[in-house]
Amino acid sequence: MDLTSFLTSLGTSFAIFVILMFLFNWLSRKPGNTVIYYPNRILRGLDPWEGGSKTRNPFAWIKEALTSTEQEVISMSGVDTAVYFVFLSTVLGILVLSSLILLPVLLPVAATDVGDKLSINATSNGTFSDLDKLSMGHLQEKSPRLWAFLIGVYWVSFVTYFMLWKAYKHVSALRANALMSPQVKPEQFAILVRDIPAVPAGQLRKEQVDSYFKTVYPDTFYRSLVVTNNKKVNKIWEELEMYKKKLARAESIYAASKNTGNAEGKRPTNKTGFLGLCGNKVDSIEYYTEKINELIPKLETEQKATLREKQENAALVFFTNRVTAASAAQTLHAQIVDKWTVTEAPEPRQVLWPNLKIKFFQRQVRQYVVYIIVALTVVFYMIPIAFISAFTTLDNLKKYLPFLKPVVNRAAIKTVLEAYLPQIALIIFLALLPKFLFFLSKAEGIPSQSHAIRAASGKYFYFTIFNVFLGITVGGTLFKTFKTIEKDPNSIVTLLATSLPSNATYFLTFVALKFFIGYGLELSRIVPLIIFHIKRKYLCKTEAELKAAWLPSDLGYGTRVPGDMLIITIVLCYSVIAPLILPFGVLYFGIGWLVLRNQALKVYVPAYESYGRMWPHMHIRVLAALILYQVTMFGYFGVKKFVFAPFLIVLPILSLLFGFICRKKFYRAFQDTALEVAAHELKELPNMEQIYRAYIPPSLGSEKIDDDQFEDAQSQVSRGGSFA
Amino acid sequence: MDLTSFLTSLGTSFAIFVILMFLFNWLSRKPGNTVIYYPNRILRGLDPWEGGSKTRNPFAWIKEALTSTEQEVISMSGVDTAVYFVFLSTVLGILVLSSLILLPVLLPVAATDVGDKLSINATSNGTFSDLDKLSMGHLQEKSPRLWAFLIGVYWVSFVTYFMLWKAYKHVSALRANALMSPQVKPEQFAILVRDIPAVPAGQLRKEQVDSYFKTVYPDTFYRSLVVTNNKKVNKIWEELEMYKKKLARAESIYAASKNTGNAEGKRPTNKTGFLGLCGNKVDSIEYYTEKINELIPKLETEQKATLREKQENAALVFFTNRVTAASAAQTLHAQIVDKWTVTEAPEPRQVLWPNLKIKFFQRQVRQYVVYIIVALTVVFYMIPIAFISAFTTLDNLKKYLPFLKPVVNRAAIKTVLEAYLPQIALIIFLALLPKFLFFLSKAEGIPSQSHAIRAASGKYFYFTIFNVFLGITVGGTLFKTFKTIEKDPNSIVTLLATSLPSNATYFLTFVALKFFIGYGLELSRIVPLIIFHIKRKYLCKTEAELKAAWLPSDLGYGTRVPGDMLIITIVLCYSVIAPLILPFGVLYFGIGWLVLRNQALKVYVPAYESYGRMWPHMHIRVLAALILYQVTMFGYFGVKKFVFAPFLIVLPILSLLFGFICRKKFYRAFQDTALEVAAHELKELPNMEQIYRAYIPPSLGSEKIDDDQFEDAQSQVSRGGSFA
Repeated sequence: MDLTSFLTSLGTSFAIFVILMFLFNWLSRKPGNTVIYYPNRILRGLDPWEGGSKTRNPFAWIKEALTSTEQEVISMSGVDTAVYFVFLSTVLGILVLSSLILLPVLLPVAATDVGDKLSINATSNGTFSDLDKLSMGHLQEKSPRLWAFLIGVYWVSFVTYFMLWKAYKHVSALRANALMSPQVKPEQFAILVRDIPAVPAGQLRKEQVDSYFKTVYPDTFYRSLVVTNNKKVNKIWEELEMYKKKLARAESIYAASKNTGNAEGKRPTNKTGFLGLCGNKVDSIEYYTEKINELIPKLETEQKATLREKQENAALVFFTNRVTAASAAQTLHAQIVDKWTVTEAPEPRQVLWPNLKIKFFQRQVRQYVVYIIVALTVVFYMIPIAFISAFTTLDNLKKYLPFLKPVVNRAAIKTVLEAYLPQIALIIFLALLPKFLFFLSKAEGIPSQSHAIRAASGKYFYFTIFNVFLGITVGGTLFKTFKTIEKDPNSIVTLLATSLPSNATYFLTFVALKFFIGYGLELSRIVPLIIFHIKRKYLCKTEAELKAAWLPSDLGYGTRVPGDMLIITIVLCYSVIAPLILPFGVLYFGIGWLVLRNQALKVYVPAYESYGRMWPHMHIRVLAALILYQVTMFGYFGVKKFVFAPFLIVLPILSLLFGFICRKKFYRAFQDTALEVAAHELKELPNMEQIYRAYIPPSLGSEKIDDDQFEDAQSQVSRGGSFA
Repeated sequence: MDLTSFLTSLGTSFAIFVILMFLFNWLSRKPGNTVIYYPNRILRGLDPWEGGSKTRNPFAWIKEALTSTEQEVISMSGVDTAVYFVFLSTVLGILVLSSLILLPVLLPVAATDVGDKLSINATSNGTFSDLDKLSMGHLQEKSPRLWAFLIGVYWVSFVTYFMLWKAYKHVSALRANALMSPQVKPEQFAILVRDIPAVPAGQLRKEQVDSYFKTVYPDTFYRSLVVTNNKKVNKIWEELEMYKKKLARAESIYAASKNTGNAEGKRPTNKTGFLGLCGNKVDSIEYYTEKINELIPKLETEQKATLREKQENAALVFFTNRVTAASAAQTLHAQIVDKWTVTEAPEPRQVLWPNLKIKFFQRQVRQYVVYIIVALTVVFYMIPIAFISAFTTLDNLKKYLPFLKPVVNRAAIKTVLEAYLPQIALIIFLALLPKFLFFLSKAEGIPSQSHAIRAASGKYFYFTIFNVFLGITVGGTLFKTFKTIEKDPNSIVTLLATSLPSNATYFLTFVALKFFIGYGLELSRIVPLIIFHIKRKYLCKTEAELKAAWLPSDLGYGTRVPGDMLIITIVLCYSVIAPLILPFGVLYFGIGWLVLRNQALKVYVPAYESYGRMWPHMHIRVLAALILYQVTMFGYFGVKKFVFAPFLIVLPILSLLFGFICRKKFYRAFQDTALEVAAHELKELPNMEQIYRAYIPPSLGSEKIDDDQFEDAQSQVSRGGSFA
C-alpha cells in the first residue's frame, strides 16, 4: 500500500468520525432521544442533563468524561467497568510512555540511514513508500544503529512491567473495597454447593443439606435453598408473562381506538392458529384473559410439583455473616473431594441455573471437550480467513464480480476500497464468533454468567491472536514466499519476524479504521437510535414495550477486551519495527477511553458484577502480547544479522518471572474473598429473609404462593421422612 | 550370570536369613534384651511378652504379626505406619494377583517356544542359561505367542488400577477417622501464620497478630504465640542440659564408687580444657553444679530477651474449636496473597522453628534452587555409579587389587562375590544420600519435619529410579553397544526395552539380596543390640543414659519407601519380560510386611504423625512405575517386531486418566482437613491452656518462669505501645 492510499484511508476514517461526533451532539440534545443517550442515568432516577450536557458546546461530553472520577464509574456502572477503564488507561499509559522515547529517537535514526538493499529492491516493485523509510526495515543489516532499537525493546518492556504492576495493585484494592463495602449483597452471604451425594433413605434432600451444614456451622447457618429443575415451570411462566404482555397491548390498542375513532372503540382481534396467521378469529382481550386464567392455576400446580419433586443435587446455603460465607466457599467440606463441592455463590441475576446440577467429573470432561473444540476452531478457521483475505483483494473482486468494474475503477473509490476491503471482511467475520464461544463456555458447566463470559472472552482472545494476527502476518508471507520456504525451512520466529514489516501498513489501517469508525458508531449510537424510533412508531403500544425498546445492554467487555487485546498485540509488536504505529495506538485507547467513559456513565447498564475478576486475565494477556513481541523482536534482530540480538533473550524470561510474581502475589485474592476484607463491618444488620428471597427464581416466586409451600425445596423446617 | 551362580546367591541369602531369624528368636527371649526387641511396648507401659511371645515357638512373632489388626498398628505406631502397611499390602496384592495369571500362562508359553536366534547366539558366548528360557526374550520375533504377553501387560495394569483405587479409598477413610478422633490434638486447634507484615508504628507484634485475628474470628480466637528467634536461648539451654546430665553422671559414678570400694567413695574429677583432655583437674560434682548455677540466671535473662526482642514475622494462632482452625488454615486471609499466609499447624514435636521466618518469595526461590541442585545431583551421579559398577566386577578387582587373587579364585567365594559385589557397592552408595536430600528439603523453608521428610523421600525416589534402574539398565547396555548406537541412534524407549532382558538376573539377585539380608538384619536387630550392650557395659552410668542407649528410632519410611519403589519398578518392568521375578517380588513385600509389622508393633516409636499424607506420593509413584513399565513394554514389543504393539498405547493414557481421577477425587483431602471431618465432636472440652503450652519450645518453657513473662511474644494481654 502506498502513502496516498494510506492517507486517504486515514482521512476518510477521520471524516466519518467527525461527522458521527457532531451527529451525536445534535441528536443527544433532542429530548425524545434521552432514553437512547442517557438510559443509565434515567434508570437510576437521575436527571439526564445534570452537569450541563445541554449546553451547545460540542465537546462538553469530553469534559464530563475527563472530570468523572473512578468512584462515579463504580457507582454508575460497577467495579467491572471501572476495572475495564484501568485496563484502558494502563495500556494507554504503556503506549504514551513508549512513544515519548521511541518516536523522537527511533524515527530519525531510521530515516537518516542509507537504507537496506532489500527495501530498495522493494521500491522498484512499487510497494515501497516514504512511510517505510521510518521503520526498522529501512536500516542496513548489522548496522550499529540497531542498538537504539534494541534499547527501545527494553524500554517498552520495562514500561509495561511498571504500568501492569501499578494497575494490578490498584485493581486489587478496588476489588477489596467493593467486597468490604458496608452494603448488604446477597451473594456475600451465600455459597453454592454442588455434587451433593444421593439422599439417604428416610431423609429429604432439604434435611440432608440442612443437617450437613448445621453440623459444621451450628451458629452461623441460616437456611438452604435446594436447586430445582425449573424447565417446565419456566415454560409455563414465560407463556403466562407473554399473554400478560399481549393482554396489556390489546387493552392499550383498545383504549387508543376509543380516543381516535368512535367512542365505543374497536376491540382488537387475533387469530388463534400458527403465528396468528390462521385459525379462528377471536376477541383478543377476552382470549388472553381466558388464557391467563387457565395458566395461573397450572403454574401454581407446577410450582408445587417442582419444589417437591424436581430437586437436584445442588443447593444455595445461606449464612448469617460474610466471613463464614467467604470462608465456607474456600474450604474443603467433604473427605471425598468430588462431593459437596463449594464455590462462592454467583449474584442472583447471573446464576446459570441449568448448569448447577452437572456433576464434578462431567464438568471436567465437558471442559476438556470444549477445549478441544475451541482448539480445532482456532486452528482450522485459518482456512476460511485466508480464503476470504485472498478473495477480497480488489483484483479478485473485479475478476469474480465483473459488474463491479465500473464502480471499482474510479480512482477515489478504488483507493478507499483497496484500503478497507480486507479489513471489513475480517471484522464481519470476527463478529460471528463470540456467541458460539459463549455457548461453548456455558456448556462447560460454569455456574455464573460472568464466569462464562470470561471463559468465552479468553477463547475469543486466543482465536483473535492466532487467526488474525498470526494468520495475517505469517499467512501472508507464507503465500508470497512459499517456494523460498520450501527450499530452506525457517523457524517460525524468523518467519514471523520477516513477515511483520511488510504487513505494517495493513495493520496501521486496521487500527485506524477500528477506532475512528468503531468509536464513532459507538458514541453516536446511530443503530440503536434508528431501531428505537422505528419500534416506537410502529410496534410499541404499552409503556413496558417502549422501555424494552430502549433498554440498553451492558458494556460487553467480553468481546471488547479481545478486540483491544488484538490492537495491543499489533501495536506492541510493531512499536519498535515501525514506531509510527504508536500514535495510532494512543489514539485508539485514548478515544476509546473517552467514548466508553461517556457510555459507561450514561448509556450502558451493567448486567452483572464480578468485582473485577476479569483483571487477572487482562493482565496475563497483555503480558502474553509482550512476550510475543519480545520473541518476535529477537527473531527480527536475527534477520537483521545483529550480533547483539541475544541480549534480548533476557526479556521473555523477565516477563515470565514478572507474571509468576504477580500471579503469586495477587491472583488468589481474585479467586477467593480474603477474610480480612469480608470481616469489615456492615452498615446494618442483614435482612436474611430478603437475602434468601433474592435467589428464588421469578418463575417460582409468585406472590400468591405463601411461604409454607416453599418448605420442600427451600425452607429450613424439617419434616418426618415422608419421602423414604 | 549362569544358573549356578544365581542359585548360590539365592541359597546364601536364604541361609543368612534363616540364621538371623533363629538368632532373633533366641535373643529376643532373653530378659536383658527386651529394651531392644520391645521398646515401643515398654515405652507405652505394656508388658513386652503379653500374648505369648515367650513361648518356644520360633514362628510366634509371625502369628502375632498376622493376627494384629490395623487398629492395633494405629494405636501403637500411628496412622503413618498404618498407611505404610496399606502400601505394602497393596503392592503385595498387585504382585500376587499378577502372578496368579502370569506365572502359569507365560512361563510355559515362553519355555515351549523354539527360541530366538539372538538368545541362541548368546548361549555360545556362555551367558545364556536355562533361566533365560523362561523369559520373553526367548520368544521368536513376530511370534503369535506374544499375544499372551500383551494381554499380560493389560492384566498387570488393571490389577494395579484396582488395587490402587481400593487402597486410596481405604487410606482416605483412615485419615478421616484419625482426624475426627475425639481426642484433643493441639495441632487441630492451631494454624501457622507466616509472612506477617511489618509491625505498624505504636503496636507490638503481639497486638498486631491478635487484633488481626480477633477481627476475623471474634468468637473463636483464643490467643497467639509469636515465633521468636531461639538460636541463642537454645544454645544456653542445651549447655545447661548437658551440664545437668554430666552432673547426674558424676553423682552416679560417685554413688557406685561408694558401693564397690571404700565407704567414702571416690569423687570423680575432670579436666576443664578442650574435650576434657587438658586444663585444670577439678571435682566434677562441684564444677558442674557451679556451671549450672551460673547458667540458670543466664538462661532466664536470655528467655526474657528472646520473648521481648527476638520476635519474628510468624506466629501460631489458636482457636477454640477444630472447625475454625481447619477452615482458617485453608482460607485466604489477606488481599495481598503473600502476606498473612496460613497453613495447618504442624504437630508441636515436628515444627522446624528456624524455617518459619522465611518469607514467601524467598521460599519460592529456595524451592527452585533446591530443585535445580537435586536435578543436577540426579543426572550427574550417574557418572560415579557407572564407574563403581564397572570397577567392581571380579575381573577388575583381580586386575587392580592383585593381592585378592588367591581369595577370589576359590570357586565358592568367587561365585558369591560375583553375585554380590556390584549390588553391595550400589547399596552402600545409596545409603549416603538421604541425609543430604533431607538437608536440601529443609533448606526449602518447609515448616514441618514430616513434610521435609516427604520432600526428601520424593527426591530420593527420583534419584533411585533415574540412577539405579535407568542407570544400570540403559547404562549397562550403553557400554556394551556403544558402537552400534553410534551408527544407528535409537530412541530411548527401544534402548530401554532392549537392555531390560539382559539385566533381568542382575535385578533378580538384587531383589533377593535386599529382602533376605535386609529384612533378616531388620528383624534380628543385631547392630542395635551390640551397640546397646557395649554402651551399657562401658558407657552408661545413669538411667537416662541407659534409656538413650536403647531408645529406638522411628520406622523411617522416608528412606524405606524409595527403596520399596525401586523394587516395585524393577518387578513391574520385568513382570512380563521375565515372570520369574514375580515370586521374588511377592517374597520381598510379604516378608517385609511381616518383619515390619513386628517391628512397628514392638520396636519403632513414631517421631511424628502426618495422618497419612505420604499416601498420595506413594500412589502416584506406583502409578509412575506402572507407566514406565507400559512404555517400556511398548518399546519391547516393538523390538520383537510385533505388529499389534500399538494396542499398548492405550495403557499409558489410561494410567494418566486414572491418576487424574484419583487426584481430583481424593488428593485435596490429604492437603487440607475436610470440615465434615473436623466437625466431629470431642470427648471433652479442650483445655486450651494445655494446647497452647504444647507449642512452647522447651528452651523457653522453664517452669521457673511464670506466665507474666510470656506476655510479649505469647500471651493475649495487650499493653500500651511501649515499643513504638
